[in-house]
Amino acid sequence: MRHILIIGIGAGNPEHITVQAINALNRADVLFIPTKGAKKAELAEVRRDICARYVTRPDSRTVEFAVPVRRTEGRSYTESVDEWHASIAVTYEELLERELSEGQIGAFLVWGDPMLYDSTIRIVERVRMRGRVPFGFDVIPGITSLQALCASHRIPLNLVGKPVEITTGRQLVESFPEKTATAAVMLDGEQAFHKIEDPEAEIYWGAYLGTPDEIVISGRLDEVKDEILRTRAEARERMGWIMDIYLLRRGADFDD
Amino acid sequence: MRHILIIGIGAGNPEHITVQAINALNRADVLFIPTKGAKKAELAEVRRDICARYVTRPDSRTVEFAVPVRRTEGRSYTESVDEWHASIAVTYEELLERELSEGQIGAFLVWGDPMLYDSTIRIVERVRMRGRVPFGFDVIPGITSLQALCASHRIPLNLVGKPVEITTGRQLVESFPEKTATAAVMLDGEQAFHKIEDPEAEIYWGAYLGTPDEIVISGRLDEVKDEILRTRAEARERMGWIMDIYLLRRGADFDD
Ligand SMILES: C[S@@+](CC[C@H](N)C(=O)[O-])C[C@H]1O[C@@H](n2cnc3c(N)ncnc32)[C@H](O)[C@@H]1O
Ligand SMILES: C[S@@+](CC[C@H](N)C(=O)[O-])C[C@H]1O[C@@H](n2cnc3c(N)ncnc32)[C@H](O)[C@@H]1O
Repeated sequence: MRHILIIGIGAGNPEHITVQAINALNRADVLFIPTKGAKKAELAEVRRDICARYVTRPDSRTVEFAVPVRRTEGRSYTESVDEWHASIAVTYEELLERELSEGQIGAFLVWGDPMLYDSTIRIVERVRMRGRVPFGFDVIPGITSLQALCASHRIPLNLVGKPVEITTGRQLVESFPEKTATAAVMLDGEQAFHKIEDPEAEIYWGAYLGTPDEIVISGRLDEVKDEILRTRAEARERMGWIMDIYLLRRGADFDD
Repeated sequence: MRHILIIGIGAGNPEHITVQAINALNRADVLFIPTKGAKKAELAEVRRDICARYVTRPDSRTVEFAVPVRRTEGRSYTESVDEWHASIAVTYEELLERELSEGQIGAFLVWGDPMLYDSTIRIVERVRMRGRVPFGFDVIPGITSLQALCASHRIPLNLVGKPVEITTGRQLVESFPEKTATAAVMLDGEQAFHKIEDPEAEIYWGAYLGTPDEIVISGRLDEVKDEILRTRAEARERMGWIMDIYLLRRGADFDD
């Protein structure tokens, strides 16, 4: 049977790779690398850099593939994502069939950790459910952008004994500060932090974490939100793309 | 100036260590290893195993130290933790002063990632605030037990585009299923999942993750909660200690 390894490679810093991931990269006969289009060429570059540094097995092959584009027109968000996943599943199935022979191992290199706001696991499950190409699979964790954020700011994620919500830009308003004292926000295309009016809130923001272009800003939300917006817009303009993440927090460790 | 590295070493699987952490271990002149008392000797053992495997620098020293015990009697939870942190800060300060000379680097090896339900960062900050021994510090992320849980079950943490709450046993009732469709629960001494009555809830549970004793169970909460309680009690009895974590989930990816 074919076998798939879904390998977390960290979110930008090539040294965030684990020993388990390096060993997994070297077990694979074929390494599948998504190319996301010209804008995010840097991301494909990090993946290639990781292979160049850590793949010591001489006979493995790298196969780059284009990820289908998501269509949004005339569809609800969930319809659009569901349809998108279905079409990626077809791409994966074709890759498995065409690029792997029976008994071979293929690896998908996933940004950060495959468990966090990433659909590789669920798409691989879809391919398995379709049942046309039988295979087994394993998941190898990787350092997430959230961990890179906390490490760069040298902060704990949670206040002492308190919960944390991990959420997206579009859902932040429902969450912070009413529902949770700490919100970690990813996938925020609308800079949702800017709409939050809370004189006590603090923000820890980071972009391009782990890469040579890393930028971090922290402080009272009120005082730094405009600086973050400005810095973000400038960086995005200069680089042609941006990936950023932040933590919003209210209160202190020993409040009750 | 002295320098401290707070290094995440993963939550049980020695191969979860990152290249960055290995390099950091080898930058340290002194490795500080907490001994948590006889019961959790296995944990100190994992730390020693990691040093034995990955520390290649011949001249570094290992210093084991006893972590002060938390007193709870006649104190609120926050008073108790605050006082405990203060006394650990004194221990750290003494270690820095006694074991490191000016310009040397000391490393604290932290279970999982230092950002997640761990107080090493905040205690090191306390020592810095006290100002008696000046030093700088850095944080190196590590794979958390939550990532080990998701990888072993081969599941994404979040439903598509949905938030996740990371919480503790004592706060679970306030959270799931009303406030969040996914709750990741750590530090649960009371098996809080057992009190949740929700015919639709699913649980993904894991103990001793990443170690040779790893146990995982998943299924409808209703159907597996007794099996988990039984398995947990037996394992705890046999091993003398337990560390477990779980994810509760309600609903599916493409619900709206
Ligand atoms: C589709 S999610 C994938 C997350 C990834 N699986 C992880 O573990 O970090 C992409 C989001 O992750 C965050 N992100 C990923 N890499 C990042 C980086 N290097 N710096 C800042 N944010 C990053 C951003 O919020 C971005 O919108
Ligand atoms: C004080 S917290 C430390 C968490 C750690 N910093 C991390 O990143 O996973 C301890 C809790 O983590 C979870 N935990 C840590 N290691 C574990 C393991 N190997 N298996 C299962 N749960 C674990 C348990 O919920 C335990 O109560």
